[in-house]
Amino acid sequence: MFEIALIGAGRIGKIHAANIAANPRLSLSRVVDPFGGAEELAGRYGAKVSAAEDIWADPAISGVLVASATDTHLNYTLEAIRAGKQVFCEKPLDQDAGRAAQVQQAVAGTDRHVLLGFNRRFDPSFARLQRRLKQGEIGTLETLHIISHDPAPPPASYIPGSGGIFKDMSIHDLDMASWLLGEEIESVFASGAVLIDPEIGAAGDFDTAKILLRTVGGRICVISNSRRSGYGYDQRIEAFGSKGMIRAENKLESSVQTWTEEGARSDCFQNFFLDRYAEAFAMEIEHFADIIEGKATAVVNEDDGLKALILAEAADQSARSGSMVTLAASARC
Amino acid sequence: MFEIALIGAGRIGKIHAANIAANPRLSLSRVVDPFGGAEELAGRYGAKVSAAEDIWADPAISGVLVASATDTHLNYTLEAIRAGKQVFCEKPLDQDAGRAAQVQQAVAGTDRHVLLGFNRRFDPSFARLQRRLKQGEIGTLETLHIISHDPAPPPASYIPGSGGIFKDMSIHDLDMASWLLGEEIESVFASGAVLIDPEIGAAGDFDTAKILLRTVGGRICVISNSRRSGYGYDQRIEAFGSKGMIRAENKLESSVQTWTEEGARSDCFQNFFLDRYAEAFAMEIEHFADIIEGKATAVVNEDDGLKALILAEAADQSARSGSMVTLAASARC
Amino acid sequence: MFEIALIGAGRIGKIHAANIAANPRLSLSRVVDPFGGAEELAGRYGAKVSAAEDIWADPAISGVLVASATDTHLNYTLEAIRAGKQVFCEKPLDQDAGRAAQVQQAVAGTDRHVLLGFNRRFDPSFARLQRRLKQGEIGTLETLHIISHDPAPPPASYIPGSGGIFKDMSIHDLDMASWLLGEEIESVFASGAVLIDPEIGAAGDFDTAKILLRTVGGRICVISNSRRSGYGYDQRIEAFGSKGMIRAENKLESSVQTWTEEGARSDCFQNFFLDRYAEAFAMEIEHFADIIEGKATAVVNEDDGLKALILAEAADQSARSGSMVTLAASARC
Amino acid sequence: MFEIALIGAGRIGKIHAANIAANPRLSLSRVVDPFGGAEELAGRYGAKVSAAEDIWADPAISGVLVASATDTHLNYTLEAIRAGKQVFCEKPLDQDAGRAAQVQQAVAGTDRHVLLGFNRRFDPSFARLQRRLKQGEIGTLETLHIISHDPAPPPASYIPGSGGIFKDMSIHDLDMASWLLGEEIESVFASGAVLIDPEIGAAGDFDTAKILLRTVGGRICVISNSRRSGYGYDQRIEAFGSKGMIRAENKLESSVQTWTEEGARSDCFQNFFLDRYAEAFAMEIEHFADIIEGKATAVVNEDDGLKALILAEAADQSARSGSMVTLAASARC
Repeated sequence: MFEIALIGAGRIGKIHAANIAANPRLSLSRVVDPFGGAEELAGRYGAKVSAAEDIWADPAISGVLVASATDTHLNYTLEAIRAGKQVFCEKPLDQDAGRAAQVQQAVAGTDRHVLLGFNRRFDPSFARLQRRLKQGEIGTLETLHIISHDPAPPPASYIPGSGGIFKDMSIHDLDMASWLLGEEIESVFASGAVLIDPEIGAAGDFDTAKILLRTVGGRICVISNSRRSGYGYDQRIEAFGSKGMIRAENKLESSVQTWTEEGARSDCFQNFFLDRYAEAFAMEIEHFADIIEGKATAVVNEDDGLKALILAEAADQSARSGSMVTLAASARC
Repeated sequence: MFEIALIGAGRIGKIHAANIAANPRLSLSRVVDPFGGAEELAGRYGAKVSAAEDIWADPAISGVLVASATDTHLNYTLEAIRAGKQVFCEKPLDQDAGRAAQVQQAVAGTDRHVLLGFNRRFDPSFARLQRRLKQGEIGTLETLHIISHDPAPPPASYIPGSGGIFKDMSIHDLDMASWLLGEEIESVFASGAVLIDPEIGAAGDFDTAKILLRTVGGRICVISNSRRSGYGYDQRIEAFGSKGMIRAENKLESSVQTWTEEGARSDCFQNFFLDRYAEAFAMEIEHFADIIEGKATAVVNEDDGLKALILAEAADQSARSGSMVTLAASARC
Repeated sequence: MFEIALIGAGRIGKIHAANIAANPRLSLSRVVDPFGGAEELAGRYGAKVSAAEDIWADPAISGVLVASATDTHLNYTLEAIRAGKQVFCEKPLDQDAGRAAQVQQAVAGTDRHVLLGFNRRFDPSFARLQRRLKQGEIGTLETLHIISHDPAPPPASYIPGSGGIFKDMSIHDLDMASWLLGEEIESVFASGAVLIDPEIGAAGDFDTAKILLRTVGGRICVISNSRRSGYGYDQRIEAFGSKGMIRAENKLESSVQTWTEEGARSDCFQNFFLDRYAEAFAMEIEHFADIIEGKATAVVNEDDGLKALILAEAADQSARSGSMVTLAASARC
Repeated sequence: MFEIALIGAGRIGKIHAANIAANPRLSLSRVVDPFGGAEELAGRYGAKVSAAEDIWADPAISGVLVASATDTHLNYTLEAIRAGKQVFCEKPLDQDAGRAAQVQQAVAGTDRHVLLGFNRRFDPSFARLQRRLKQGEIGTLETLHIISHDPAPPPASYIPGSGGIFKDMSIHDLDMASWLLGEEIESVFASGAVLIDPEIGAAGDFDTAKILLRTVGGRICVISNSRRSGYGYDQRIEAFGSKGMIRAENKLESSVQTWTEEGARSDCFQNFFLDRYAEAFAMEIEHFADIIEGKATAVVNEDDGLKALILAEAADQSARSGSMVTLAASARC
């Protein structure tokens, strides 16, 4: 069993801790959290509370999972790389593309990559959609629609430190687009609006956005984002190809339907992201175990993180200027 | 164009008149209705109001469609056969299996058959299900479920002349079962209840029933009937085979869905039998035109009518006695 | 019964003729077609073949339905207005917005409007979606997705006279957007590509497009168009509001599903636009009868035709320039 | 935390062990298995391998979970009751209704009940259906359809010790029927057939069956059982009431659909009972923790086990005799 150190004992850290403990190849041996909460979590799974410094030096520790506050991701990741650990870092590496590029430099010349926590790639439905696309089930991909609407907006106080809707929310969808489009993205046009919470607007952000991406080969992707859906956590993808369409619909909470004179009523779809992506989080940890065991290299890594960040910055620039942003050839993804 | 005489200008007669008029091979030339209503209907389509006697003798008339009161079906059908017309008779031929058998005798030795109005065989969904079954899409058929629930019960006054739930309502499903099972039916068990309207019980009938049919090869069919569904006109079939299942679901009034925090709300299904089976009625007339033109023989005829009637009588006997009824080999269908 | 003259006996003219004949308030009395075909159609419904000139002068004729070649729409419409007839004109009024504006001038000061053949507004599913939106079933509308993909591209020879994908195909969706958004559209961004047929590109047109519309209040609409879907005639709308989502899905050819070890297979959706919109065409004629009878004014008229044309021109300009087009306040719709 | 002893380390025992370990209120302290396998399982969760005798005497152990071979259920359960433990016993208590009644005697006069492993009652979809029924969402229940088809038949060698299809397979559905019908069941009619594997027939059993249950108030339930579906593990319920219908459909493996010219292809449904009922098994253990903590009494207990066994015996008798079996008033459930 490979020993894992977890940095960050918050909401997402707890999910990862449970999946590490349940994984037959991994054991949770250390929990680091400067803000406390480490004791309770460590106790539940028989791990030790540690300072970060003690992890780097301990040869028993094979992997480090960085799930702390966003502004600490970069430093912990760089230190873990230097210490020779395998790293799983929650997205984003950093809110600044320039700084995030340091991770690329740190792994350059090694055979290592940082596993980046774009959990949606591990979702069984989206992964199946991608596999079918790749197998040519609908011929050649032409266009793509991604819908990603949150159930409810965050408090306005969250906005200033969030990096804005494109870096905070769209970034997941921009990574999905990069992954599925299979061609370099050449230009970005985005339209943002404040339709939900005026305080979000007052904080200089949008709460509603549509993004148009275009690849060098003319494939077009539309991303729809909303901070509040009013009907649940809407997570869907439709891919249109030369021979058909593949779509991944939402997962309902149950398969129960009530039929009356007013028609049929189905259940809600899974509303909380930890439920919706529960399987994805477990699959991510499974993949991390494969990496530590030397059976795989990270299927989503620092390069993908950087690409998504560049796209998010371009979307933000476009939404603010009203102009399409063409990416420099060097920054294309 | 072949001239058609319609006997009966009631609700179902009007449907047939419209479909005859719209059919490029047929024209409605006569309407007979002892209870009136013939003028209005005849006028709309340029037909003449006639007495039945005038039809038999008129060589211009190729086909007769009998859509009058049930207790007149048998006589009109027999007369039309004798006059050498092609006949389309609404179900049932008669409420008494013994009397209905006269039609078999009347056509014996001729190459004619009466097209019997079991409209559901012409429904595009059910017809597609049957075709796929026959093509072996799910291997060998093993069991069958038929659900047929009416939206609302008839007035209690309708019950005494109706022949009871099995002859009046289940008879359609018993014909579907005969058609789809593909083997002779050997035994019938039925359970009837009065759960909807005590007056239906007082009239000696049931308003709710489940029927179990069993073929000589052990295939089993369940029919579910209810005089009132509370949620629309529920018309479904599921066929289970060695390699899979085919099902025909209800058709919704529209494809609109509303999603809110309470889940998804779909539209009702088509609630009125004339809407639900509109295409089936048109296909029936198309088939009648084929018969008249000599391109086809009736795919559902007096033999099927008699079989369904015998099964309905067996179901009634079983529901009243609590015992399974085994059909004499001569009566099997 | 009101007498109707039909100009144009082609594919769409035949549909209208059948619906006029079936409508109890209307009768088809004249058919005009300079290219022939009028005799057969007139014969089927008891109408006379006429020259257009004879129609204008005949006081018995209440309504004129213009379904001839696109470049003749404008003149026939203007003449019919001058002759005091009620007019139903197939879309578009003209491919040029400037010329089409003559219709607005012609009806100015009268109480008349031209019923414009944007058939999708009469589709029962889309009409239901619109009604529910208006009733506030999902709160306030925020964004809108319209998918409109054709089954197969037209021959390349059709392209030069078509006006291009935006005026020929997107125009329907632009009208739906105007209708549903409920606010003036302020800006248009479009991205076009040639992914299906290089000959369409050689003719200077696109075969694939996504359009982003934005209203003065910040509502955003995405339209997806493709000349070939590879999976049928895909016609869907999703409306996102403050309290939920309403969507109109495609209509399947039947409700039959086959379940095997490979999963469930549903039927195709209705693939041919005349099938898909059969009910819409009948409802349009019903509305035309209401207009003639004085019970209604055209719910979609020359103003809507002009708005859609202006939006199509803006989309075309945006797709060719790569820049967002802001509409002059006077042209907003 | 309450200590639990698990008797039986086979397939189902492993599931329960994992759910006990994951439950924050329970810990797995002992594993008993005369056939071995206990070491591996005990090791994984830090439990001790024990003999059964040691469990009864150990006051630290609060609950006993009996998941051993069917013919040992009864004795272990009786001993655990005598030792004052809370007991969770996998179904059935025993294959013989007379012997199983000993459990009723053993708990008589105590406030204890044995939690019986009818896992389907804990399935979120079925539980939701039951809750909605009880809340009157469809008025008064009238009839019920339960479909329960296994993916593949067991080897013929399994049949002789299984108790036959009714006690081995239908028993789950008979319990669901008892639970949902809400009235005493008065009569049973069953029809069994051998359509899948002649060796099952040679062993004196059926592989296909339909069961009709009827309550004292005339409610009717149809159960459909098949040892092999050809299309997956089909587990559905439909309840028909005076105001509507509630149905629980199968759960698909993913929400992905592929649309091509052949129509839409959805994913299979969850095929393995341990996947299909994974949540149900976890909920059962949660309920067991509630019982141990004194917060609940067993919602499904020895009485329910006995009722289902009596119904299974009646179904077997009916299928063999061809006659409806009326239950003695004392045996009604």
